[in-house]
Amino acid sequence: MKQLQRILNNVINRTNINLRRSSIDVGPYVSGAVPQEKYAQFYAFYAVSTEHPLFFNFQCSSLAGSYFFGKCDVQHSVMYKCDVRGDELKSLAKGFNVDGTNVRLHSDEVIRIVDSFLNKTLIHSFSHDPEFPEEFLIKNTVALSYANIHGSPVMGSFLGPFCTIDLCTVQNSCIGAYAYVQVADLQPSVIDPGHIWIRNKSGDEFIYDYAPEIVSKYISVAPNERAKGLFMDFVDSHKRDFERVFGFLYASRPESYAPGSFVSRYAVVKGETSIGENVLVAQRAYLENAHLGKGANAQENSYVIDSYLEGYDVTAHGAKIIGSRLGTNVFVGFNSFLRGTPEAPLTVGEGAVIVPHTIIDLVEPVTIPAGYVVWGYVTKQADLATQAVSIEDFAKVDGEVTIGAMTFSGNGERFIRAFQHRIHHILHDNGAYYDGKDNLGHAQKTKNITYNLIQPYVEGGFKGVYPNIRIFPLCPDDLCM
Amino acid sequence: MKQLQRILNNVINRTNINLRRSSIDVGPYVSGAVPQEKYAQFYAFYAVSTEHPLFFNFQCSSLAGSYFFGKCDVQHSVMYKCDVRGDELKSLAKGFNVDGTNVRLHSDEVIRIVDSFLNKTLIHSFSHDPEFPEEFLIKNTVALSYANIHGSPVMGSFLGPFCTIDLCTVQNSCIGAYAYVQVADLQPSVIDPGHIWIRNKSGDEFIYDYAPEIVSKYISVAPNERAKGLFMDFVDSHKRDFERVFGFLYASRPESYAPGSFVSRYAVVKGETSIGENVLVAQRAYLENAHLGKGANAQENSYVIDSYLEGYDVTAHGAKIIGSRLGTNVFVGFNSFLRGTPEAPLTVGEGAVIVPHTIIDLVEPVTIPAGYVVWGYVTKQADLATQAVSIEDFAKVDGEVTIGAMTFSGNGERFIRAFQHRIHHILHDNGAYYDGKDNLGHAQKTKNITYNLIQPYVEGGFKGVYPNIRIFPLCPDDLCM
Repeated sequence: MKQLQRILNNVINRTNINLRRSSIDVGPYVSGAVPQEKYAQFYAFYAVSTEHPLFFNFQCSSLAGSYFFGKCDVQHSVMYKCDVRGDELKSLAKGFNVDGTNVRLHSDEVIRIVDSFLNKTLIHSFSHDPEFPEEFLIKNTVALSYANIHGSPVMGSFLGPFCTIDLCTVQNSCIGAYAYVQVADLQPSVIDPGHIWIRNKSGDEFIYDYAPEIVSKYISVAPNERAKGLFMDFVDSHKRDFERVFGFLYASRPESYAPGSFVSRYAVVKGETSIGENVLVAQRAYLENAHLGKGANAQENSYVIDSYLEGYDVTAHGAKIIGSRLGTNVFVGFNSFLRGTPEAPLTVGEGAVIVPHTIIDLVEPVTIPAGYVVWGYVTKQADLATQAVSIEDFAKVDGEVTIGAMTFSGNGERFIRAFQHRIHHILHDNGAYYDGKDNLGHAQKTKNITYNLIQPYVEGGFKGVYPNIRIFPLCPDDLCM
Repeated sequence: MKQLQRILNNVINRTNINLRRSSIDVGPYVSGAVPQEKYAQFYAFYAVSTEHPLFFNFQCSSLAGSYFFGKCDVQHSVMYKCDVRGDELKSLAKGFNVDGTNVRLHSDEVIRIVDSFLNKTLIHSFSHDPEFPEEFLIKNTVALSYANIHGSPVMGSFLGPFCTIDLCTVQNSCIGAYAYVQVADLQPSVIDPGHIWIRNKSGDEFIYDYAPEIVSKYISVAPNERAKGLFMDFVDSHKRDFERVFGFLYASRPESYAPGSFVSRYAVVKGETSIGENVLVAQRAYLENAHLGKGANAQENSYVIDSYLEGYDVTAHGAKIIGSRLGTNVFVGFNSFLRGTPEAPLTVGEGAVIVPHTIIDLVEPVTIPAGYVVWGYVTKQADLATQAVSIEDFAKVDGEVTIGAMTFSGNGERFIRAFQHRIHHILHDNGAYYDGKDNLGHAQKTKNITYNLIQPYVEGGFKGVYPNIRIFPLCPDDLCM
């Protein structure tokens, strides 16, 4: 374990230096997060496909993860059960559009992870930072359980459990548990647990704060301890099913789902589940008694249980949908937790938008009308009065408005339109609109991936650490022949 | 499949050039050996251990294999289900003893496989060639089903099914099915099927030829066809059990066998099987109702079925022992086929030597007395008269002797002593004499290996071909921190 401890110490030191102004010590969080014995027990997976750029390098790292895609370069880092998916990385050939200007890249974009500790972390999309378009960078960063890093360089930061960094560059910041940050550029700062903060390029700003006792009911973390709360209990209770799907080398051949659909062999599919056309069920998604209608998706680390999704619904990374019925085109944002029961079902009308990091945990039946935006903490119908508004009404806002614990300032129509544009983009990228020929997306492109599986040393000073490994594409043509 | 076909064509061309004097075309053998669809269906394994040198590189190769160990560099080659085990490769630190002179190496020894097609081939040990001590080379070589390459550089050769190249350098030669060659240095030549040829450094020579109809009953091959015969039927009938052990990613944790023993997670262990102390059961060995007493071993591709091995018995690569009872210190050489039945059991006395490539396939009970050497083709007790001799009598030979179809010339005592020395060395290297502290061998050192698993592209022009991959050790100390 000596080498693993060195790597961990190095990550702690490097991150602490970046965070010196906030005088946080990430050490006790790192040591508390994962029992060291665990590191030697996993396989890491690197996915190979002819549809995605291929390059993988890791060096002096411990890396117990599930799923890598696209170009990745990992050094001196510990990544535990992380998903990394780089299939949207920018290519040298296409360049990068920044506010209408096409910027030429000097290389294909690479996910670069250096001196970081990423515990069950999802990393996805591509760098939205115009200053670093070639590098999807996570450097000197400590991320706790189920933090999402989505579309951004992150440097020298501490990410609490179940938080999300979305579409922004974050530097030397502490992000509290279950906080959601989408603000393009976050300079050194401390974000409280349960702080939901969206600010788009036009300056429209959406802010909501969870009551601290609600956040800690669902997720909290303390030094030298593993994260705890209802979210951890929930994911822990489904662990065993994932052990099963990850334990078989030869997958049961993909069953014949509807045309254009893709169900990862590393997803759990149980009970009476039906998969419609152009549906994407990503790695580590969990479906049980779920209906996913045409063009719906269940992204990484999401759960759809005892629920009906009519079609073109987005279940974003880490979202959980239980005991719910969704109309078409419903968007359920990152790490949202929707839980109905047979006695208290949740019904969501067509085109509704569940803001990322929303908790709808019912004690009575609740219906969200079509075309509504919902955020915050909902347990009964009356809660919607202060945590939801119709898109129509939202679009009328110009200036500042406060509804319950939410404050919005800016142009409501522009804000909502940007949101809807993004949802459309997500559906498109995932292949929801594939017509058998055009509009190919992840569901169609990801069909034929294979996996390289890498395992750490299981004894001695290198226990829990992997050998260095480098995977690179074949020569394009006959260079090697 | 385009790229795979290119690699195959390249292998065929390069090998044919080497074999131009014998005007053989290896092409139809290569194409007949493996249906191209198969190449996309396998995983290759690279084993990682802190006890063995680590380095693996393959480039522009298709490689559907099971097990790599030690330093390997594979280029432009197709290797199908091959075992490659380099854990006896020479190290820079130790050097190499050639006839009493210690030769300094300029690097650790590396297995280098270039432009070769190796179908289910075992490659093992280290280079015995004093001119190439740093390279365990197999270059421009086509090897058919279950050919063994053991301890030698092989260049530009064609190896028939179930043949063995043992402890020698072979250049530009055609080795027939089930032939066994152990002659230090084989210049361009054609070796007939079933030709057993041992010539040691002192010039002692042992030659036996199988009747052609016997060889072809057990193994034969024709252009554009897969090899066939009783040997192929036998291994085919046990395939399914291996699919099972290779299909699980997380091995059932090694059961607690006797101290000092090792049973590979990629071995099949069935029925009432018992494993004694210091026993080595290698990858792809098959045990069913087998007793392996203290210090016995079952090497790669060997089978022990309904048999009792008292202890310190060697079951060499590819040997099959069925319905047999072996006393202590029995040696069963490469690819030997011993098959008794309940009505016609085989009994082998203490210290007997079954010469590599011996077929004992019984129609009546047969007893081989203790201290006998056996070769050739035995089906009944009377056959021993012309295919066996006591070690004591053998040792008396000085000059030339012919027994049945076997001719020996040289010094019998020296020949037998060399053989016994080697058997002792094999037992020692495999850990049979481990006393809990000293005499560590493979059984003890191989305990804690882990695996990297690599899978080919399953669609498109690269179908059946792997990405380039490079696995290398961690920095020795803190270079990287």
